[in-house]
Amino acid sequence: MSKPKLRVIKIGGNVIDDPKALQSFLRSFAQLEEQLLLVHGGGKLATEMGKRLGMEAQLIQGRRITDAATLEVVTMVYGGLTNKQIVAQLQALGKNALGLTGADGNLLHAQKRPVKQIDYGFVGDLDQSKVNVDLLDAFFRENLTPVFAALSHDGQGQILNTNADTIASVLASALAKNFEVELIYCFEQAGVLSDFQQKAVIPLIDRKQYESLKSEKVIHSGMIPKLDNAFEALNSGVHQVRIIHFSDLLNAEAGTKIRL
Amino acid sequence: MSKPKLRVIKIGGNVIDDPKALQSFLRSFAQLEEQLLLVHGGGKLATEMGKRLGMEAQLIQGRRITDAATLEVVTMVYGGLTNKQIVAQLQALGKNALGLTGADGNLLHAQKRPVKQIDYGFVGDLDQSKVNVDLLDAFFRENLTPVFAALSHDGQGQILNTNADTIASVLASALAKNFEVELIYCFEQAGVLSDFQQKAVIPLIDRKQYESLKSEKVIHSGMIPKLDNAFEALNSGVHQVRIIHFSDLLNAEAGTKIRL
Repeated sequence: MSKPKLRVIKIGGNVIDDPKALQSFLRSFAQLEEQLLLVHGGGKLATEMGKRLGMEAQLIQGRRITDAATLEVVTMVYGGLTNKQIVAQLQALGKNALGLTGADGNLLHAQKRPVKQIDYGFVGDLDQSKVNVDLLDAFFRENLTPVFAALSHDGQGQILNTNADTIASVLASALAKNFEVELIYCFEQAGVLSDFQQKAVIPLIDRKQYESLKSEKVIHSGMIPKLDNAFEALNSGVHQVRIIHFSDLLNAEAGTKIRL
Repeated sequence: MSKPKLRVIKIGGNVIDDPKALQSFLRSFAQLEEQLLLVHGGGKLATEMGKRLGMEAQLIQGRRITDAATLEVVTMVYGGLTNKQIVAQLQALGKNALGLTGADGNLLHAQKRPVKQIDYGFVGDLDQSKVNVDLLDAFFRENLTPVFAALSHDGQGQILNTNADTIASVLASALAKNFEVELIYCFEQAGVLSDFQQKAVIPLIDRKQYESLKSEKVIHSGMIPKLDNAFEALNSGVHQVRIIHFSDLLNAEAGTKIRL
């Protein structure tokens, strides 16, 4: 028996920060007929809100630190404002969305990142074996569309700021047992580009190509952790990963496909 | 066949504003063995957050107005910060809590309050007939404890600020079909008091007593809408309403019982 299809779709700040882009994205999203799961990052709103509250973004060696005050802001903005606005808009589009963090229903269990050279603060590293797959299955049976904010918890009462790309990859991986999962990363480019100037999209990347594209420096900086997440998901049984422009959601062939 | 028991419990600002009181309340809450549903109001945090963001609380004839900026703040604070902190703490206490607003799962449908003498702004009046009881039943089957923030939606993409006492009453009423529901309002007094100075708790109030206590002005101001909500719930089939001090949750006889 073939598994039912599931699309795990991740959107980031470039969609969330632009109300028109977000609305247009959600309109496309609501037209998809497979079982869906949405993961959203935060965008600039949390940084802006922090500034308005008199907080300075704390960076150590260029990495953002989640201190207690920052955690409050991201919990408010990701888990409250952004998540509920997306849920309410999806309801208006006929999708029965359910806004979630990893604390809700004990869905995503994480460990506070151990302090080594850098103390990242209240940042969570997810435990894929502890994803509450049974509860997600129950939600799917109720025809719900889970909408995850980029937050998890440690089971001891602590909420943890958690990378949205990783949440999407871990959820896709955990759900691959019961579903044929496509993991889709939406961002501001048409896919992984072979030449940044000419914007030529690489249609397909496998593990071997990935290694050579990295060594040729065609793929670098922020794209590397994204593709690492993609390959981790594929190694865990996810059927396919795609990296697409957020306006291309209805085109099943758009962007860069990533396979083992 | 007797119906299973359900307790719908509402807490307000006096618990939420005091981390120790909240923790102590949640510890008691987690010890209750019946099916539970928690509704929380907002407390001072939203007002404080508004002030820190340079907003003035807008009052018209003493009533708080929810303009667009205030709605953002309550969506962040009630739906994000307070809700997720309660959920994470309940998880640590072994209750599988699920944080919700009325937009999530289309659980609570409301109409924006029509403008008459006062424009209350983005405030929702709930439609009891549209409570998504089937989904709440599914959550209960999964052994989840729903935790509602005081927010609903209009189905057209608009989140609406909604009175927490009313949410508790409407949820209790809608669930009375399948459960023997006790609705418990937790607040800062030991119950409805016959004499404010001597703090004598009225053990039981029925409809007739309520009318005479109102005419004698023993019951006045903020207690009237609370008791009106209580009697509406009783009229809709709720078994019993109790008004108790938030530290008395484990005493099933504490406070003032309200029956028809």
